Amino acid sequence: MRVEQIVLNEKRNVTLTVYLQEVGGEFRNVVKRPAMLVLPGGGYQMCSDREADPVAMPYLKAGYQVFILRYSVRADAVWPNPLEDYEQAMELIRSRAEEWNLYADKVAVIGFSAGGHLAAAAATMAKNRPNAAILGYAVTSEDVKGCNKTAPDTICEVDFDTCPCFLFATRTDNIVPIANSIRFMEALDQYGIAFESHIYSHGPHGFSTCDTSVQHKDTVISSRVPNWVADSISWLKDVFGDYGDGEMTKPVCPVHVNGDHEPFLSVDCTFGRLMSNPQSKAILDVLMAQMQKAGSQAAETGMEMNEDMAAMVNKMTLRDMLAFVNTPVSIIEQLDEQLKQIPNV
Amino acid sequence: MRVEQIVLNEKRNVTLTVYLQEVGGEFRNVVKRPAMLVLPGGGYQMCSDREADPVAMPYLKAGYQVFILRYSVRADAVWPNPLEDYEQAMELIRSRAEEWNLYADKVAVIGFSAGGHLAAAAATMAKNRPNAAILGYAVTSEDVKGCNKTAPDTICEVDFDTCPCFLFATRTDNIVPIANSIRFMEALDQYGIAFESHIYSHGPHGFSTCDTSVQHKDTVISSRVPNWVADSISWLKDVFGDYGDGEMTKPVCPVHVNGDHEPFLSVDCTFGRLMSNPQSKAILDVLMAQMQKAGSQAAETGMEMNEDMAAMVNKMTLRDMLAFVNTPVSIIEQLDEQLKQIPNV
Amino acid sequence: MRVEQIVLNEKRNVTLTVYLQEVGGEFRNVVKRPAMLVLPGGGYQMCSDREADPVAMPYLKAGYQVFILRYSVRADAVWPNPLEDYEQAMELIRSRAEEWNLYADKVAVIGFSAGGHLAAAAATMAKNRPNAAILGYAVTSEDVKGCNKTAPDTICEVDFDTCPCFLFATRTDNIVPIANSIRFMEALDQYGIAFESHIYSHGPHGFSTCDTSVQHKDTVISSRVPNWVADSISWLKDVFGDYGDGEMTKPVCPVHVNGDHEPFLSVDCTFGRLMSNPQSKAILDVLMAQMQKAGSQAAETGMEMNEDMAAMVNKMTLRDMLAFVNTPVSIIEQLDEQLKQIPNV
Amino acid sequence: MRVEQIVLNEKRNVTLTVYLQEVGGEFRNVVKRPAMLVLPGGGYQMCSDREADPVAMPYLKAGYQVFILRYSVRADAVWPNPLEDYEQAMELIRSRAEEWNLYADKVAVIGFSAGGHLAAAAATMAKNRPNAAILGYAVTSEDVKGCNKTAPDTICEVDFDTCPCFLFATRTDNIVPIANSIRFMEALDQYGIAFESHIYSHGPHGFSTCDTSVQHKDTVISSRVPNWVADSISWLKDVFGDYGDGEMTKPVCPVHVNGDHEPFLSVDCTFGRLMSNPQSKAILDVLMAQMQKAGSQAAETGMEMNEDMAAMVNKMTLRDMLAFVNTPVSIIEQLDEQLKQIPNV
Repeated sequence: MRVEQIVLNEKRNVTLTVYLQEVGGEFRNVVKRPAMLVLPGGGYQMCSDREADPVAMPYLKAGYQVFILRYSVRADAVWPNPLEDYEQAMELIRSRAEEWNLYADKVAVIGFSAGGHLAAAAATMAKNRPNAAILGYAVTSEDVKGCNKTAPDTICEVDFDTCPCFLFATRTDNIVPIANSIRFMEALDQYGIAFESHIYSHGPHGFSTCDTSVQHKDTVISSRVPNWVADSISWLKDVFGDYGDGEMTKPVCPVHVNGDHEPFLSVDCTFGRLMSNPQSKAILDVLMAQMQKAGSQAAETGMEMNEDMAAMVNKMTLRDMLAFVNTPVSIIEQLDEQLKQIPNV
Repeated sequence: MRVEQIVLNEKRNVTLTVYLQEVGGEFRNVVKRPAMLVLPGGGYQMCSDREADPVAMPYLKAGYQVFILRYSVRADAVWPNPLEDYEQAMELIRSRAEEWNLYADKVAVIGFSAGGHLAAAAATMAKNRPNAAILGYAVTSEDVKGCNKTAPDTICEVDFDTCPCFLFATRTDNIVPIANSIRFMEALDQYGIAFESHIYSHGPHGFSTCDTSVQHKDTVISSRVPNWVADSISWLKDVFGDYGDGEMTKPVCPVHVNGDHEPFLSVDCTFGRLMSNPQSKAILDVLMAQMQKAGSQAAETGMEMNEDMAAMVNKMTLRDMLAFVNTPVSIIEQLDEQLKQIPNV
Repeated sequence: MRVEQIVLNEKRNVTLTVYLQEVGGEFRNVVKRPAMLVLPGGGYQMCSDREADPVAMPYLKAGYQVFILRYSVRADAVWPNPLEDYEQAMELIRSRAEEWNLYADKVAVIGFSAGGHLAAAAATMAKNRPNAAILGYAVTSEDVKGCNKTAPDTICEVDFDTCPCFLFATRTDNIVPIANSIRFMEALDQYGIAFESHIYSHGPHGFSTCDTSVQHKDTVISSRVPNWVADSISWLKDVFGDYGDGEMTKPVCPVHVNGDHEPFLSVDCTFGRLMSNPQSKAILDVLMAQMQKAGSQAAETGMEMNEDMAAMVNKMTLRDMLAFVNTPVSIIEQLDEQLKQIPNV
Repeated sequence: MRVEQIVLNEKRNVTLTVYLQEVGGEFRNVVKRPAMLVLPGGGYQMCSDREADPVAMPYLKAGYQVFILRYSVRADAVWPNPLEDYEQAMELIRSRAEEWNLYADKVAVIGFSAGGHLAAAAATMAKNRPNAAILGYAVTSEDVKGCNKTAPDTICEVDFDTCPCFLFATRTDNIVPIANSIRFMEALDQYGIAFESHIYSHGPHGFSTCDTSVQHKDTVISSRVPNWVADSISWLKDVFGDYGDGEMTKPVCPVHVNGDHEPFLSVDCTFGRLMSNPQSKAILDVLMAQMQKAGSQAAETGMEMNEDMAAMVNKMTLRDMLAFVNTPVSIIEQLDEQLKQIPNV
């Protein structure tokens, strides 16, 4: 492994520590590697070593190129300095993708506490968005002003271009209220962004990997907490794909859970969305009439459609709905073709 | 193990299946057992076998007495019939605690989908509240009306007497939108109720334990999903305690994360709460003045108190805040005495 | 789940407890189930409840039909009474395979301590061999005479028809020395029988599932110990196959690691075995000459064949050896045809 | 983290890669760190990168200082060159313990395949023994001569000073027969050395950490295999102790399972050992007579002592035996004092 330290901004004391692993040779099926950018926490007053190297190790083991950004803190942390530090780091990482043997479109970011705020800002506001973000007991709301007056709420910045997110925290965190995680999820849900989240019953703020070398073994903290590390690696495989034959396999987990925010309609839009557009509604009305005539499914299940059930159905994608009533794939594909002609306005 | 089937309501076809394990004898340190009441799902149209026996087994292994309630469905599911079935079951379980060798104050409920709705209703609305609730891809919101027009939203019923909850679901659930879990957590947070939650990135609705005998092994579903079973057992130890010497040990995870909703104030109330009551504010003002004079902590950390930081501090408990600045326990206890004289109004 | 108790031998107080789960219906892809026969321990003086029901539960959860045999103990334990109890139970289980919805050729046995001795005897000496055996801190050697004078050493009974075995124990077991597990593995190795084994660093004898309801939470015992339960279930999938579409999938783990004990030779025999038979040696000599001529592989790797390396090669199967030097599958299959004509004498 | 490469032997191309982590500062309770020396495999023809950095990472995460030794290979591998490389590395590591912030008496070694042979040699033959050894699909027997004619069998070198060992391998390894692991355990057992071992049902040789970046994700290999990494870390805590308050806690797992090979006798010797020495036998005879008189225990359990049972008892430590019959601690300690006067000859 090669280790390098790059000064990104001497005045503000911003550095990027670079951990680069070999490719090829005995790593037969490794041509390039996905990458992880670590943003330690520390209330925008410091960048904690406890959330730097110990966090890098498991991703290195999992086959990642890993970078640690020590961003602007204290007086230098006035917004948007930290975000600009991030932008600079991410631009550098992607621009050297060839040299550093990494996939420019598989660069994740992980941040803790205030670093989690910066990761959330990166995921929602940056020009150079990461491809996935891991938010550890992150400050995402206005609560950030408690440690950095100039830093923004990120929840209201969640948009359709936000990357898939993995959140973890303890419910009893007494520094960053758990509402920071809950409300961020809510925003992700509104925009149909993929996510996973683990809120553990109890434990203090700032546990990092929860290894006994970073968090005292006698800490009163849920025994499930250390699982976030392996779970996040497993999740990254779902959103980035896994090492295959000289390339990464296709991800099983798409970035958006439905097509409601894409430029054109599709069978992956929710039923509700499709019914709200006159053109697609016309198509569906015909389809529904046919189905009602066939009508077997409803009879079989003994369920009658009413407005409330309709409310539920409105949230399903058309694809799922059609699969549920055993519609042949060829018909679904045909519908998809039709819908993809219609602008999503 | 003894198995019994008790008819609770012949007309509505409501039954309680009872799995009772021995105590004492070779189970040296088992005097009584905690208990689990299983509420299978099925859209209030059926009680699914996939969420009955397979769910009972891991809790039996973990040392629980287990009960499966097959509650009123279809036409009989008109509200509050299912909740009354639950009340009847819970009353029976607690009334026979001696005979059935179980702890009447350690009876959890686990429900899936519509059964999760019933579990959420039990946790928030019942006369006979459970001591803990596990909600699996539960319908908690008005979405329930899609399968049962008369059933209520449970989110708005969350109150200070709601028991600790453990939630799990998949983010891409296309039958019960994930907002059902997120918004329930938000309500729990508002009332300071203990909880743990795991939202897995992807997978269909209704996976039960995710064993291959209940969910096809080729299902596209997060590999983390099956962990909810062991995690829920581990969590129950945190809220119920573990088998000790002839009795259960003290739980590490309290029911409420702070004292803000207790009848009297205490050091476990948040700073914000205490500052909003004139009597406790007077006490704190004196305390703060003393601390400011000593003033060493702020200087050390290089952080200055401002309104934003104050906002953050307002959400901490006084106990945590005092511990953070190394206040002697004796002083904390003394303060607690004082505060406990003041009604929380 | 249906529970039944069958008296197998009234005089000797031998009973079979039967836990039967449903098939079909909502268990869509479950036509039949594999089965597990539990043999509790107790020094042939008793059948311990701690190794009965708590052991049944995880296999029930995993989709098994489960049976608990309480075999002859104390004065009745004179050999071969316990083995005859086993034979009777296994015959009954297999004869009722249709009625009880189980696969007659996927019946495993699990035994603990003295019950582990009985399981080992079943695996090595019985007329009705199980299809897999799990041996928990089992007595397998003459040590058994310490609790049952008439019971035999099972290590010397290991033969080619012994089923795949899964062994677990603690290294510091002070009742059943760990040599019982080590020497049994050695015998399995000699006969090329599939196995898996986990010897944990420390812990007392008789921990069962190691749940806190059966083994006191303060026991000084390796934290890895409870893993044997899930690991054994995962292993059983490897040797029995997993639930597929209305039938079990093909096992990934074959019963024998090579073909050295099969009635006819094959490419799955070790090189050593094939070279010791004149007919197969003649075939291999030709093959070797051809390969030497091509000779590229040895040159490439820079390794020269000497007697010591030959000793190593003698233990590889011909198939593995040929695959290692990239021999085309068609040639391997052709060789296999030829070798399968030659009786393995 | 600091990275350094030290040339140990230029002529033979032997290098030590050094990964050093900080102590103190934010790592509040870390004064020094335990250490791990990695010995990659490669048939004494190379040192494989697949068993170098990827292996270092999990131990770094767990809080270790990590070293990778690339020892003499090919022509330079003539014995004892590789062992001398090891001695040189271990001496260097221990001599710089202060500078490198590591515990000189908590240095483990991990080796794979041929590197596992070198680790086994280090554990059994070296002047500078490691404090614990992890042997991954290690060659321990004469099989080593297949890749290095001059290298010795290590099984016959196991002695009383061998350190605790953790072994793992796959049962179907077709390069290094599993007998290498089994017979090594047998030797460890004979000398009463602590160990843990995991033999997984199936998988090829050389899987390293089994991460998909080092072992192709489609490899047919037991899904339990990747567990060895976390299990080995957990085991090391048992034999080295865990991070406590500024020092490591007391190990729960002693180096020797009994006192049979210590210079003086004790209650930790086996009953058999104590009965074979006339002095200790005289003490025990008195004790036994007293116990027989009291005699309650045998009567209670309904078991009679016979020669076979005696054989079993001979393998128990006196301490365990006395604890089993509820002997007061004061009497056990008194006996221990007496026995510790008697040389173990």
